[in-house]
Amino acid sequence: MEYNVIFHIDESARWRLLLGNVENLLNASGPAHMTVEVLANGEAVLQYAKSQKADQTYAQNMALLHGRGVVFAACRNAMKANHLAEEDLMDFVTTVPAGVMELVEKQALGYGYIKP
Amino acid sequence: MEYNVIFHIDESARWRLLLGNVENLLNASGPAHMTVEVLANGEAVLQYAKSQKADQTYAQNMALLHGRGVVFAACRNAMKANHLAEEDLMDFVTTVPAGVMELVEKQALGYGYIKP
Amino acid sequence: MEYNVIFHIDESARWRLLLGNVENLLNASGPAHMTVEVLANGEAVLQYAKSQKADQTYAQNMALLHGRGVVFAACRNAMKANHLAEEDLMDFVTTVPAGVMELVEKQALGYGYIKP
Repeated sequence: MEYNVIFHIDESARWRLLLGNVENLLNASGPAHMTVEVLANGEAVLQYAKSQKADQTYAQNMALLHGRGVVFAACRNAMKANHLAEEDLMDFVTTVPAGVMELVEKQALGYGYIKP
Repeated sequence: MEYNVIFHIDESARWRLLLGNVENLLNASGPAHMTVEVLANGEAVLQYAKSQKADQTYAQNMALLHGRGVVFAACRNAMKANHLAEEDLMDFVTTVPAGVMELVEKQALGYGYIKP
Repeated sequence: MEYNVIFHIDESARWRLLLGNVENLLNASGPAHMTVEVLANGEAVLQYAKSQKADQTYAQNMALLHGRGVVFAACRNAMKANHLAEEDLMDFVTTVPAGVMELVEKQALGYGYIKP
């Protein structure tokens, strides 16, 4: 089987739960091929910053999950609103022009949606 | 391309983020045809009231987005629970018998789901 | 018509709203065949406990909805994190190895997703 899912986060306080959810999903997927993207918009993008703004435990967990194939994406509208430039983000984070457009496009391609 | 999406809101405190999300989505959709519905249930329906209950900034933003084609729908169960009659709602707001049924039906028709 | 939907809950404070949503959905579905599953992960699983941890009003509402065909499922990862064993759960609650995997699998089968 092949599964695709996009996780949506827009509150910094939800990162701990979300990262645990993603890890549990990867551990549970067994032989299935699981494509996972995490899309952050709103103030949740601040957690992608290299600087002290990002909780270091979260940053390490993200890096580990990225190594297991998880895509971490940031909404550029949210970055602008939160005064973050591309060079402020951790290296493994990708950006998309509009987070909500990404959520719409991925669901149109058959991705499931989960909002922890 | 043609996309359809239903936004779900059940907390008044989320209206600011939701309306920004919808505006960003319309601005990002380019030549794609984007059908957007906002479905409010729970206490979030209070923000649809014409009276002082509704934050006027939100009301103006909703009217502008409605002018760009966005459907704003209210759950009648939630209206009853929050003592709102149809005549209390702003003119551009439509009502549905049960908000959750609307969410189910629209997703069955292929709409994406976003919960800011 | 035949509809399938999975409700997702990961915060105990959302049970009241969720159970009202499910009841409204069943009441609104009319002649349509409506399959409803409620998937709890995170600390929301605590509300499934037989003990005093579970609010008795919620427990009664869940039992009534289960009698109307609603499946109540608990994530075993969340049970472990919250020190709940299978024998601690109310009898009508089923368990799944990973709640997020259940959310992905059900959406891949065409279920709608609602997060109250």
